[in-house]
Amino acid sequence: MAKIIECVPNISEGRRPEVVEQIVDTLRARPDVKLLDYSSDADHNRTVVTVVGEPQAVKEAMVDFVGKALELIDLRYHQGQHPRMGAVDVIPFIPIKEVSVEEAVQLSKELAETLYQKYQIPSFLYESSASADHRKNLANLRKGEFEGMKDKVRTKEFTPDYGDDVHESFGITAIGARPFLVAFNINLATDNLEVANQVARAVRHLSGGLRYVKAMGVRLDDRGIVQVSMNLTDFTKTPIYRVFELVKLEAARYGVEIVGSEVIGMVPMAALVNTANWYLRTEDFNIEQVLESRLME
Amino acid sequence: MAKIIECVPNISEGRRPEVVEQIVDTLRARPDVKLLDYSSDADHNRTVVTVVGEPQAVKEAMVDFVGKALELIDLRYHQGQHPRMGAVDVIPFIPIKEVSVEEAVQLSKELAETLYQKYQIPSFLYESSASADHRKNLANLRKGEFEGMKDKVRTKEFTPDYGDDVHESFGITAIGARPFLVAFNINLATDNLEVANQVARAVRHLSGGLRYVKAMGVRLDDRGIVQVSMNLTDFTKTPIYRVFELVKLEAARYGVEIVGSEVIGMVPMAALVNTANWYLRTEDFNIEQVLESRLME
Repeated sequence: MAKIIECVPNISEGRRPEVVEQIVDTLRARPDVKLLDYSSDADHNRTVVTVVGEPQAVKEAMVDFVGKALELIDLRYHQGQHPRMGAVDVIPFIPIKEVSVEEAVQLSKELAETLYQKYQIPSFLYESSASADHRKNLANLRKGEFEGMKDKVRTKEFTPDYGDDVHESFGITAIGARPFLVAFNINLATDNLEVANQVARAVRHLSGGLRYVKAMGVRLDDRGIVQVSMNLTDFTKTPIYRVFELVKLEAARYGVEIVGSEVIGMVPMAALVNTANWYLRTEDFNIEQVLESRLME
Repeated sequence: MAKIIECVPNISEGRRPEVVEQIVDTLRARPDVKLLDYSSDADHNRTVVTVVGEPQAVKEAMVDFVGKALELIDLRYHQGQHPRMGAVDVIPFIPIKEVSVEEAVQLSKELAETLYQKYQIPSFLYESSASADHRKNLANLRKGEFEGMKDKVRTKEFTPDYGDDVHESFGITAIGARPFLVAFNINLATDNLEVANQVARAVRHLSGGLRYVKAMGVRLDDRGIVQVSMNLTDFTKTPIYRVFELVKLEAARYGVEIVGSEVIGMVPMAALVNTANWYLRTEDFNIEQVLESRLME
């Protein structure tokens, strides 16, 4: 498995496990992709699925997956706290290993084309695949939700990239390529939330910090400390070690030390290998020197 | 592939590629193991082979591999610079992922037993598998080489662990479990070899340093700097970051900075992931959070 891509489809069903299982079974049925995780939220009435494999295999798996969701989910009867516009609400493709953003964009377009040809399901391309700047952001596309989509797709700004009307029961989906998102939190040796907030403001893109960092301060009541809670939206361009060192520097300005950090959920090997290599100051290190990298070929 | 073990058999043939190919083909023929590398040295008349896979699969592959070497190599006609005592001279098993030293030791004994039952090939258990302290070190066992083995195995200290005499054409082999060896060099911003030697003495086990470090100073003539050249013989107990930080500390005593480092050859993912986690001060990080770790299951 030289090339690896991840796909994290969100389906608008989180209350009927028998429906979720049937949809997820379409992925289990394929020996060439691996279902890594899926978790349902009843309040949101939504399930987030994670599958990985070679790009073409993952794309083909998603065709079956969406077909089954079309069969079993009717958005006209869907209620939940999470905004949604489609039975499969969003389909992001995330390069993991030896896949470029361009390839992931191409894959997202191929899937969108197939879904329209095979099932007449319309779609918006979003994130790196978007056809215009105002269509990159998922929240922008989804505003108005399923109920408001019929009117929205008739406006010039929001004509679907594939199809021209909303599917009666399925709605419309967003398909696109985006980088892997690393959830990374740094705990500070203080109970002063204002310090965490100041550090968050210093490191995040929104207020002048690093381009691919979202951050906010939060209180960890049970431990009596505060945390800079972050999403690293492209670790290949804003690497973990740089975020860590900048937080350390900004916290030190208040005389505050870092007590620890947390990686929430999964992280690609490359993110940690690059971090190790930076601290070790290696010259000419190649990721193929990592034994496990060779094993996956 | 949840459990991964590596095996690095050395064969006493490095001049006849057609013989090496036939022996290595026994590994290529198995879909359940992966041949990572093999390289022959004509002066040494020896070939080093690297194969990985699940423990039982690797063990079974080694039975075929040794069988083919027995068929094609006659040590009575072997000459080369490298000391040797067997057609397959040594068979180390190296835990890579989710394999304990105890499991690797058990595997080495199973292989030794099978080789004796099936081919009447005798063996010494060495390193972690050794039956006595004076039999841990390969050089100790091999002293006297093929030509002297017939007498040596009659002494009390060197009775084989399996069999009681030397095989007429094959000789005797050493089988054992040992940790992965990481070749790690650190380059210093000075042309003074004495600084590299002093730092090497400070960090290596032999002269009072870290337990699983071998080190010496070498001159990099083309760059006009010196290097602390090291072998880390058990990175799970003496991790890479500790070696790096200690070298940094000791070099600083001479006012010398680290300019860079080199990892030579392969390194298990865990060695770099642990290093990243140490610098990032993560709390409760589990290697299963590394996406590629899940992919290999």
